Amino acid sequence: MRICIDMDEVMVDNYQRYHELFEEQQGRKIDPQAYYGKKIYELPGIESMRDELHRPGFFRHLPVMKDAREVVEELYENYEVYIVTAATEFKHCFTDKWEWLEEHMPFIHWERIVFCGNKSIVHGDYMIDDKVSNLRTFNGKGLLFTASHNVHDEGYLRVDNWLEVRDFFRNERAAELAAES
Amino acid sequence: MRICIDMDEVMVDNYQRYHELFEEQQGRKIDPQAYYGKKIYELPGIESMRDELHRPGFFRHLPVMKDAREVVEELYENYEVYIVTAATEFKHCFTDKWEWLEEHMPFIHWERIVFCGNKSIVHGDYMIDDKVSNLRTFNGKGLLFTASHNVHDEGYLRVDNWLEVRDFFRNERAAELAAES
Repeated sequence: MRICIDMDEVMVDNYQRYHELFEEQQGRKIDPQAYYGKKIYELPGIESMRDELHRPGFFRHLPVMKDAREVVEELYENYEVYIVTAATEFKHCFTDKWEWLEEHMPFIHWERIVFCGNKSIVHGDYMIDDKVSNLRTFNGKGLLFTASHNVHDEGYLRVDNWLEVRDFFRNERAAELAAES
Repeated sequence: MRICIDMDEVMVDNYQRYHELFEEQQGRKIDPQAYYGKKIYELPGIESMRDELHRPGFFRHLPVMKDAREVVEELYENYEVYIVTAATEFKHCFTDKWEWLEEHMPFIHWERIVFCGNKSIVHGDYMIDDKVSNLRTFNGKGLLFTASHNVHDEGYLRVDNWLEVRDFFRNERAAELAAES
């Protein structure tokens, strides 16, 4: 069974760096309520924040999302896990993302990494992603990983954190084993 | 209709650079007959040639395969073309490959680029590739692009050059139009 897992805002916690950038650009702290329900760089006056994503180094030093390492490793041991990340928009991000995975998820083989633009080309059984646009074109079952920008989105099974992801797949596995026996 | 197109030894002519590397390492010209039917870096004594693929810059300045630019552009105008290239083994190749595409195939949108390891994760209608291992796991129809290393491989429709690729898809299109009318 193949599970496709997104990086940004799913395995990777991008918000801490966004908050720093906001403070550097605006000279004040951001109120997370200000971007609740939308993309942080859609806030007026900080459109240039998105330009930072094009700079070499941006994707290299972002923190790991809470519990991601342990749960991704558990999934990796039990399923055919692929990391499927939107990357081709940013010509300098690849080596950064590759080194991030090497550092934080060293158990992931390079064969299981996909850097793409439009995720509709990959297929599998499950996709864990924070964007409904990616889940919509996926052939399998989508799990919407909660992020501030997607809180109003509906139509997909929602997982709020990595422990919920872990429990979802543990339950799936238990149900499978029960069906087999 | 979606067509997945490989880069190395299909859109990109890698052999000229391999020949230069052989001459640098061995002090003599390579005889192409010596690697007929196998991978060039499987020749005894030049195993280190493959290490060059890990160096930044290797994939940036390789020539375009004859007629590739014109035919890929014609396909791109008529079909949903994706560039699907094995890349994640080489952590420095991404920006090189991205810039190569930007220079030689500027009409290709970043959404249509996939850098992966194992191509079994992509799906589509056609795949043009020089490796039977990639065609074997593909859900659609595989076209084997002739390269010195695959001359003995069988079981796939073979295309020897880009004009043959062009004619194959022109014929498919004519057959489709005839079927519709």
